[in-house]
Parts: sequence; structure tokens; C-alpha cells
Amino acid sequence: VDYQHVQVPFEITLWIMLASLAKIGFHLYNKLPSVVPESCLLIFVGLIMGGIIYGLNDKSPPVMDSDIFFLYLLPPIVLDAGYFMPSRPFFENIGTILLYAVVGTIWNVFGIGFSLYGICQVKAFRLQDVSLIHNLLFGSLIAAVDPVAVLAVFEEIHVNEKLHILVFGESLLNDAVTVVLYKLFRSFCEMPTIKTMDIFAGVGKFFVVGLGGVLVGLIFGMTAAFTTRFTKDIRVIEPLFVFLYSYLSYLTAEMFHLSGIVAIIACAMGMKRYVEANISLKSHTTVKYFMKMWSSVSDTLIFIFLGVSTIGENHEWNWPYICFTVIFCLVWRALGVLVLTFFVNRFHVNTITSKDQFIIAYGGLRGAICFSLVFLLPDFHRKKLFIAATTVVILFTVFIQGMTIRPLVDLLAVKRKRESAPTVGEQIHIRFLDHLLAGIEDISGHWGQYYWKDKLEYFNSKYLQKILLREYDQPKSSIVLLYEKLERKHAIELAEAGQLAHAPSHPSLLKNNRTVKMDPKLDDALNPDVLENIQEILARHLYRTRRTGPAYNRHTLPGETELMEHAKEILILRHRSL
Amino acid sequence: VDYQHVQVPFEITLWIMLASLAKIGFHLYNKLPSVVPESCLLIFVGLIMGGIIYGLNDKSPPVMDSDIFFLYLLPPIVLDAGYFMPSRPFFENIGTILLYAVVGTIWNVFGIGFSLYGICQVKAFRLQDVSLIHNLLFGSLIAAVDPVAVLAVFEEIHVNEKLHILVFGESLLNDAVTVVLYKLFRSFCEMPTIKTMDIFAGVGKFFVVGLGGVLVGLIFGMTAAFTTRFTKDIRVIEPLFVFLYSYLSYLTAEMFHLSGIVAIIACAMGMKRYVEANISLKSHTTVKYFMKMWSSVSDTLIFIFLGVSTIGENHEWNWPYICFTVIFCLVWRALGVLVLTFFVNRFHVNTITSKDQFIIAYGGLRGAICFSLVFLLPDFHRKKLFIAATTVVILFTVFIQGMTIRPLVDLLAVKRKRESAPTVGEQIHIRFLDHLLAGIEDISGHWGQYYWKDKLEYFNSKYLQKILLREYDQPKSSIVLLYEKLERKHAIELAEAGQLAHAPSHPSLLKNNRTVKMDPKLDDALNPDVLENIQEILARHLYRTRRTGPAYNRHTLPGETELMEHAKEILILRHRSL
Repeated sequence: VDYQHVQVPFEITLWIMLASLAKIGFHLYNKLPSVVPESCLLIFVGLIMGGIIYGLNDKSPPVMDSDIFFLYLLPPIVLDAGYFMPSRPFFENIGTILLYAVVGTIWNVFGIGFSLYGICQVKAFRLQDVSLIHNLLFGSLIAAVDPVAVLAVFEEIHVNEKLHILVFGESLLNDAVTVVLYKLFRSFCEMPTIKTMDIFAGVGKFFVVGLGGVLVGLIFGMTAAFTTRFTKDIRVIEPLFVFLYSYLSYLTAEMFHLSGIVAIIACAMGMKRYVEANISLKSHTTVKYFMKMWSSVSDTLIFIFLGVSTIGENHEWNWPYICFTVIFCLVWRALGVLVLTFFVNRFHVNTITSKDQFIIAYGGLRGAICFSLVFLLPDFHRKKLFIAATTVVILFTVFIQGMTIRPLVDLLAVKRKRESAPTVGEQIHIRFLDHLLAGIEDISGHWGQYYWKDKLEYFNSKYLQKILLREYDQPKSSIVLLYEKLERKHAIELAEAGQLAHAPSHPSLLKNNRTVKMDPKLDDALNPDVLENIQEILARHLYRTRRTGPAYNRHTLPGETELMEHAKEILILRHRSL
Repeated sequence: VDYQHVQVPFEITLWIMLASLAKIGFHLYNKLPSVVPESCLLIFVGLIMGGIIYGLNDKSPPVMDSDIFFLYLLPPIVLDAGYFMPSRPFFENIGTILLYAVVGTIWNVFGIGFSLYGICQVKAFRLQDVSLIHNLLFGSLIAAVDPVAVLAVFEEIHVNEKLHILVFGESLLNDAVTVVLYKLFRSFCEMPTIKTMDIFAGVGKFFVVGLGGVLVGLIFGMTAAFTTRFTKDIRVIEPLFVFLYSYLSYLTAEMFHLSGIVAIIACAMGMKRYVEANISLKSHTTVKYFMKMWSSVSDTLIFIFLGVSTIGENHEWNWPYICFTVIFCLVWRALGVLVLTFFVNRFHVNTITSKDQFIIAYGGLRGAICFSLVFLLPDFHRKKLFIAATTVVILFTVFIQGMTIRPLVDLLAVKRKRESAPTVGEQIHIRFLDHLLAGIEDISGHWGQYYWKDKLEYFNSKYLQKILLREYDQPKSSIVLLYEKLERKHAIELAEAGQLAHAPSHPSLLKNNRTVKMDPKLDDALNPDVLENIQEILARHLYRTRRTGPAYNRHTLPGETELMEHAKEILILRHRSL
């Protein structure tokens, strides 16, 4: 046996296999996933796995490597999130989302950091050696809401679109803030003195990190769209470009210390529209399917690893510090949401209700990002305390909040997502209103979102589409595209339904015979001219079914059809008898 | 800039990107790929890249790592080959393929090895220090026909199915022989004396390595099929299992020193049938598409790396040895094919023509497997000579033979592949003949391939399907499946054709109006009873188009339709005007 040789790919494959099998296992019992969120179950599996490894080896199981997490597991999830991001609600609420993501996160970081520092001053708790800067550093990593955890829980509870995008958008975009604050405080830890200049430089970095990420993402997104213009003769590698360019945008952003998450989201949202128009339908199915598959596996692996890494001897237990961390995380988030929403509601007609505010505050789950960041901390004597506190906060939010949020949503009767997609009529209506509002804004001189959207749309159809789309002379409106999609789906459904009528089972055979026998009567009633007319109309409107399909042919003798069906019947009977 | 942090994934992504862009580049000019095989162009790109790296760094560019090749690049290609292997011609010719793969390869190894040893005895060539065992070792790595190179060339020239499967099947299955002989001779190199026992043990290993590979593959294939029984509620990770289990079969076989290639082929061929029946249509599209994509990228990378690795200072040039290697490779292969085909033709009615024999002999391309094996050789003073000879043989076969095989196929008028798929009628016929022959063989007591196929089919429907398929009570015959597939394809085509009639362009609008105006005339001619009958028949036979589709509705006022079309027209005009 030569295990060394294949160890790396073998173990990776086995971990992925374990994750997939765990996922299948949960879904075998339909009741389980409807009560407990999948993330909790996966962490639980991880805990058991970790316990087994710990028991067998008598040492701490391997901890999730931060590099593996940030370079390989996180990008697929964020790419999936960005690619399938509903762009309309996102851009409609972009102001509120940014407010929560930037101001809200800063509020939480400083709130949690300073109040924990206050706790550290109490002599009875024996925490006086934890400095303010260490507390702020801890605050910066524990304050960030985790997109993976949020997505895992909110995908299952189906709250209304606005509420979903507020929590989810915040969790994605706060990455820029977290990266900046975390790196700032970590460098402060190592500096002997902190100058005022450094603090201002830190504030300036927000914009560089966030906007830089957007820029990198858009450049790669546009390049991806441009590349797919030329893949017509080699359809089979089309899906690859979507993945390659997105990943490159993430890596490039990380390389320049920008926000990789923001970059990959900008890339995915930017390219989606053009790539979809350029690539073939099958390529697009593959892209969508593979993206979902990949993010689902990454997600599963992250939660399992989270469970595995929890077991071990990395923890230093201090009741007051850990309990107050959990309390402060809850309190400061609730306060932050209340205050920020107060300002948001003053400037909006469509306000955020107090029920929604509660869910936003309660849905602030922490996850694997915090966990990876705490392990990346430089070694100092209280690191194990921070690890313990982070683990408790993650487990508390994922288990307690994650499991109770669904009953709470039911209890509060929070407005749910509408189940059906908007009808074509509604879509036309919405579009009409958009243009109306853009016109009103233009006339009144108020440059609001509709005005900018209209300008962007103009720029898109005037320049971008010509460069990025293969067939730019026929810009298809989204309604035409929707219509095509519905039509195609419909056709497949019809084929499957029609096939049932052809399936050679006895009752349907009898029925067919009955209707076939009716034909002569019909023949008498219709004269040839009228028949031809009918056929012409049918041929045009019924998708030429008559001309190509063998399903119903008036000029075939009944005997022939029976013969064919008889042959099929024999084949199937023979198969059964074997 | 923090390049270290992202180096590994960044460079891998860039290489894949380069490969994909190179592929697009070639297909932009339609004439190029029709003259020069893609593999040649890719090696050429690799040579240029290697030259640039060599020029810039002034040292040999990095050589393709054997581990990367065998663990990451080869499996996707072999999986693709196995999954899309046409099983009927493969099993019909399995005897001939095995004869070529086993006896033919051994013939080539010893032929080339001994004759090169003969050349080494000529004093003028200064090669007397190359021992017999080293020559045989070299023979074992240079004799094997490469599946990647064969696939790349034969996919483009479309020879008839039997010829294709003979060359391709041989290139896949000779892996077991190559592995055994290569390892045997390598261990002989290190042994002081060779006993007769060792030689017999080596012969026994053939069966262990080959049959062991088949066994490992089938076990994993059946497990994969069984696993997909339970994925109904979680369709999104279905494609993953196909890839995971295949890869595990490859790695497991490699771990036990069995033939990984044989294992992955057995796994893919074994599971295909059951997995296809279990997973959803979209999952299956994803599986097929991704497999093709992945193998295509691996293939591209291999040829580019082959080019890059050629440049450098790894070569020791010795004219006689290198020239004679090329000559012996050609001569011994031609002789082997002639002799083996003589025996094959004596036992078969459907003989292999002399044209076919020529193409089989000429299509024996060498590729990346030889190249990786020669770099894996233990260090000895003539290794660089072997590397040079291998490189020349690969370049010679890929460039000279690869580029001339297409004109030769045209010149000899070798029977081509039939372009159209067999009709349903033909399929029924073939199946009927199979059963007839199975019956004849059974009665006559001759246990031939039809007898065994029938027994296997019986075992499959009696036991395997019940365990491995989700809905085992309705075994679908392959004809029913084909019918479903055709029906679905047809429906999509119809949707796309029908949609053209709805596209809001002026001529079609006019036409529609004309036909709509004809309606009243029809109304008079048909009484309600007859109409209902027509509708019933149409509803049954026309896939219920009338009940669900809004395409043609006699009860809609013409004004309404016009209004809708008018609204669409406005939208599209507006879009254009922007």
C-alpha cells in the first residue's frame, strides 16, 4: 500500500464525500430539516467527528486552516451569493445596506470593544491584563455578521425579500469594514505608540478597500463577458470562464489587501447579464448547477470543520468574559439596528417595521469568518480566551438564534416571501413605473435612484452591450428573455405530459382507439378547404407540431399505429418477464 | 502586495486561463483546426511559453510534475473517456482490444528493448554502457500508446466506430501492462541478480493489476449508483457523486498499485446506466458538460506542459539512439499489428481490412504518459538520453503522424463514421437480433458473447436494478428512454420555432392579423359538437397545447391580442431608441 502518494487528494475527496453523505442523511428524514437548521446538524456532525479524532489520538484534532477557508471554501459561497443576488431589491436598498454594513459594524466593534474593556477593569474577574487595543481587536472580529451562517438560516425561513436582502447584503458588505478594522487593530497591537495620523489613515482605507474591491471585480467581470463573446465554436469550456474570472478577481483583490468578497460579488453581478446572453443554454445550466453544488459543498465543509475545530485544548475558560461577550453582541447589535433604522425610516416612505427590526437584530449570526480570524491572531497570552469566547458566540448564535428564529418568524407573523414569480403583466407594470419615475426625477431635477438607473441602462445599451455581447444588434428586453424561458419550460412540460398519453399501457390504448374511431365522423363534417385552413392556423400557432411530430397523423392507417404500439408493448412485456 | 499568500491558487488559475484562451484563439480561425490537430498547436504554444521562460530566467523551465499529471490531469480525461465509451462496440471487440493491449504491448516492449540493445552493441555509437535491462525499461515506457494523444487526434478525423474503438480501447487498457512492466524492470534495475521466480511473479502481476483495477472500479461504481438512489430531495449535489466516486476509485487503485486507468473506466462504465436513471435531467446535463469541460482543460494543459517541459537542458543528444528509437517504434508496432490481426481475422467473420490495419499501426501516438514515466526514472547517467529520445518520439508521433493521419484517411478512403444516429427501427432490429443470437447460442451450447450478454442482462434486471435504481418497478427499456429524449429535444425545438412566429416584427404581425380574420368563416362551418371533438383530440395528441398555452385562443378578442403585441412592440422600440 502506497498511501503517501495519494494522501492529499484522497483525504480531500473523503472529506467532501463525508460532507455530501451527511447532507443526504439529513434529507432522508423529512422532519429533521424542517425543525433544526442544517448548519446546526452539520456542526453537530463535526463535533462528533472531532470527539472521535480526539478520543483516538488523544490530542486536539486539526483546526480549520485559515488559508484553506479564505482561499478555497469561502469564494464559491460568495460567488454563488453574488451571482444569484436579486439585483433589484439589492440596489433599491443599497443605502440602507451600506449604512448597516459600515456604520453598524463600526458601532458594534467599538461598542463591544469598549464595554468588554470595562468588564476587564472589574478586579474580581481577573482580566486586568487584557488591554483596550486587544479588546477592540476582539471586537472587530466578533462584530461581523457571517454571510455563510446567515445564508444557511435565512434560505430556510423564507422571510420577505427586503428583510432578506437587508440582513444578507449587510453580512456580505461588512467584509470590507471587518478587514480594515481587524488589520488596523492588529498593527496597533504591534506598534509601540499610536499616532492620530494612523487613525485617519485607517479611516481612509475603508474607501480604498471597498471601492478597490468593486473596481477589481468589475474589471474582471467585464473581461469575462468580453471573453464569452468568442466562445461560440467551443461551447464546452464556456462555464469555465465564469469560474476562472470570478476566482481571479477574488485572488487579485486579496493580493492587494482589498476586499475579496466585495470584488467577487461585483464581478458576479457585473458579468451575469452579459455572460447569460452570450453562452449557450446548456452552459448556463451547468454554470448555475455547478455554482449551487460547489457552494453547497463548501458550506457543508465549513460547518463540519467548525464542529471539528471546536473540540480540543485550545480554550481558556473565563465565565464573566464569555458571558458578557454574548450579552454585548446581542445588546449592541439590537441598539445599533434601532438607532440606524430610526434614521433610515425618516428618509424612506417604505419603512422598516419594528418586527423587521427585531429579525434584523436577531439574525446577526456569527460563523466561520470570525473563527478563522481569531486563529489568525498573533500569539499572545490571552489568545485561548478569545478562541473560547468566539466559539461560544458562534455556537450560541447558530444553535440558539438559528433554531429559534423560525418559530419567532411564525409567531410575529413576519411578512413572508411571495411564493409565485411576478407575472409578465406585473413586470411590464414595474418597468413602466420605473420609466415614469425616472422621467419625474429628471424633470424635477432630483437625481435619485431611478434617474441613475436610467442613465446606467442607457450607457449599457449604447456602449457596453455593443462591446460585450455577441449579437449586440438585437438587444433582448428582459421580458422577451423571460418569455423565451417560460416557453421552453412549458414545452418540456408538454413533452412530458404528452408522453404519458403515448405510454403503452392498456387503458390509454383503449382510449386512443376510441378517439381514432371517431375520425371518420369528423372527416365527413369537414370539407377539405376548411381542413386546410385549420391546418394552416394550427401549423402557425401550435409550434408546427403537425409537420414534424408523429404523434397524430390523419393519413396514417390505424393499423400502422397499432403495429408500432404493439411492437413497443411486446418489448416492454418481454423486459418485465425477464 | 502579498503575492505569497495567493500564489498557489493564482498560478493554477492562470495556467488554466491560458489553456482556455489558447483553445478559444485556435477556434477563432476556422481553417486552422481543420488542418493542424489541436494537440500540435497546443504543444507549439507550450514550446513558445517554455522558450520565453527559458529566455527570461536563463534556466530550464519547470518540468511537468509526474504527481500533478497522474493525480490531477489524467483522471478527468480517462473518466470522460470511460463515461462516454460506446459500450456496444467496446464489448463486441473486447477480445481484439485486449489482444492488442496485452500481447501487442508486450511485443512492442521486448521488440524495441532488444533491438535497441542490439544498436547499443555497435561500438561506433558509443552506447555500450546502456545495459539490456535499461533498454527494456526504456522500451516499457516508450511502447505504450497514449490515450490522451489518440483521443485528441481520432476525435477530429471521424473514422468508423470499430477502428476508433480498437485504437482507443488499446490505448486505455495497455495501462495495466505498462504499469506492471515498468515497475518490474525498475525493480530489476535495482536488484543485483534476477531470479526466474521474479519473472514468473511479474507475469502473475498482470492479472492482479488489471483485474484488481476492474474490481475496484466496479465496487465504487456500484456504490455510486446506490448512493444516487437517495438524492431525490437534494438534487443539487447529485453530480458531485459521479466525480467523487470515480476519483476515489482511481486513487484507491493507485494506492494498491493497481491500474488506476482501468479502475476509473470500469467505475464510469459500471455506474453510468444506473446513475443516469436515478439523477435528474439537469444534474445529468451538468455531469456530462462538466466532464467534457474538465477533460478538455486537462487535455489542453497536458499538451501545453508537454511543450514547456521540452525546452531546457535535460537532454543528451545521441543521433543513432534517437533515430533508431523512432524507427523501431514504427516498425515493431506495424509488425505487431500485422501478426496479431492475422490471428484475429482467422477467428472473426467481420475482419479488419488492411487499410484499417495501417491506420491502427499509424495511429499509435505517444504522449504525456511516456513523458511522465521517463522523468520518474531513477537517476542514472543515461537518463537525459532517454528523456531526449522520449521527447523526440512524442513530437514525431504527435506532429508528423498526427498531422498526416487525416490526409491519409482521406487518401485511403477509410470507412468513416456514420453521421446519423441509428433510428428507432434499427435499434429494435439490433435488439431483436441480439435475442435471436442469444437463443441460438443457448441451443447450440456455444457460450459466446450474446449468451453472456443475455445472462448479464438477466442478472441486471433481476437483482442489480432492484438495488441500485430508485424506481426499480418500472424498468425503462433503452428505446423508451431514447423516445423520451427525442421528445424533449423536439419540444424545445418547437418552442423555439413557435416563438419565432410570436416575435413582434411587422411582417408576422400582418400575417397573424390575416389568419385571425379568417376565424369567423371557420366559426360558421363548424358546429359546437364537432369543435369539441376536435378540441378533445387535439388536447390529447397535441400535448395539451390548447389547455395551457396562450398562443392561440379563439375566445380572445383580436383587439386584446393586438394590445398586448402593441405593448411589447413599444417596449422593444423604446429599448432601441435609448
